[in-house]
Amino acid sequence: MDISAIRKDYTIKSLDISDVNTDPVTQFKAWFEEAINAQVLEVNAMTVSTIGLDGTPNARILLLKGVDSGFVFFTNYESEKGKEIERQNHASLTFFWPELERQVRVRGKLEKVTAEESDTYFFSRPFGSQIGAWVSQQSQKLNSREDLNLKKVEIEQKFSENSISRPPHWGGYRLMPSTIEFWQGRPSRLHDRIKYEFQDGNWVISRLAP
Amino acid sequence: MDISAIRKDYTIKSLDISDVNTDPVTQFKAWFEEAINAQVLEVNAMTVSTIGLDGTPNARILLLKGVDSGFVFFTNYESEKGKEIERQNHASLTFFWPELERQVRVRGKLEKVTAEESDTYFFSRPFGSQIGAWVSQQSQKLNSREDLNLKKVEIEQKFSENSISRPPHWGGYRLMPSTIEFWQGRPSRLHDRIKYEFQDGNWVISRLAP
Repeated sequence: MDISAIRKDYTIKSLDISDVNTDPVTQFKAWFEEAINAQVLEVNAMTVSTIGLDGTPNARILLLKGVDSGFVFFTNYESEKGKEIERQNHASLTFFWPELERQVRVRGKLEKVTAEESDTYFFSRPFGSQIGAWVSQQSQKLNSREDLNLKKVEIEQKFSENSISRPPHWGGYRLMPSTIEFWQGRPSRLHDRIKYEFQDGNWVISRLAP
Repeated sequence: MDISAIRKDYTIKSLDISDVNTDPVTQFKAWFEEAINAQVLEVNAMTVSTIGLDGTPNARILLLKGVDSGFVFFTNYESEKGKEIERQNHASLTFFWPELERQVRVRGKLEKVTAEESDTYFFSRPFGSQIGAWVSQQSQKLNSREDLNLKKVEIEQKFSENSISRPPHWGGYRLMPSTIEFWQGRPSRLHDRIKYEFQDGNWVISRLAP
């Protein structure tokens, strides 16, 4: 297996400042719709990067669950990432849509969504996922898969579809963006990069060298 | 567009401690080969997370170019990420292979590869990419795409395929892992997570709660 020989020239699209909306969230939504239409696999998957409790970078895949003034996702507030965010509430989101040779990089500050927003999303989930939120003490060590399955049976006996509540430690975050970069792959690694920076209440747009 | 309704249950595989190799790099190579065989799109794409010059998380997609004692990629040492790594040389790598419902998370310390290794890879690249490495002052602001194209013409006049050299500011990093987590999606969000931690010269393996 020669990984270094895996290469692909990006040729399908280009991106210029004149192509983008003045508002980066509107621009994000346009690209997201195009990604849905292009049948990107797991289109709402993104890497959420945080600062670990040891001060070094940490990251994992999460699913984007909404875009409005910010970017919304849900998690266990007592998970490793929840503890990290409690300590340092800046994060970065990286979307990669290879079907379109596109990448979006978002940086900003996280805030918890309201309990009402967390409830609304929690109750829209399938019952199995609601049970899942109660079962898992996220990121804690487990002796075996069986322990998890036993806990699941226990929780299933405790709740019905009508009686289940949202675990108090489970809810959403909204990342309020301070910079957003749109990246379009181009031939010979000379990619197009358009970056928005929030400065004095306005979004300032520039092109970056690839 | 209701992003919150995009959901998928992960059902194709499972992962237990008894399934994995005692060495996480060997295990990574096995999963990587399976990803190649499953025709994962841009199989060697990974999110590289660093700590930004402002102390907050930063991340972008890069291509993995080798796996040996560590994970190798190449970049411009004078790019934003190069400056970040100069200041704080820990990073995290996140691979996501949705075709296999798998994720791999690697954390560790970066070191520069030798000039010989950077040369070897540089001279294996197509001439267009070699030119690209000279053209771009990565992450600097550009007035227009035209400026980039003009610079490209200038560089193309300067070098031939036989005379081109590696730019001194262009080369590789190797991430030496301290933790590696293998994540396999499972139904109802009760995913399998197997984590390796390097402790006292040995890799210690455990299962984490999803």
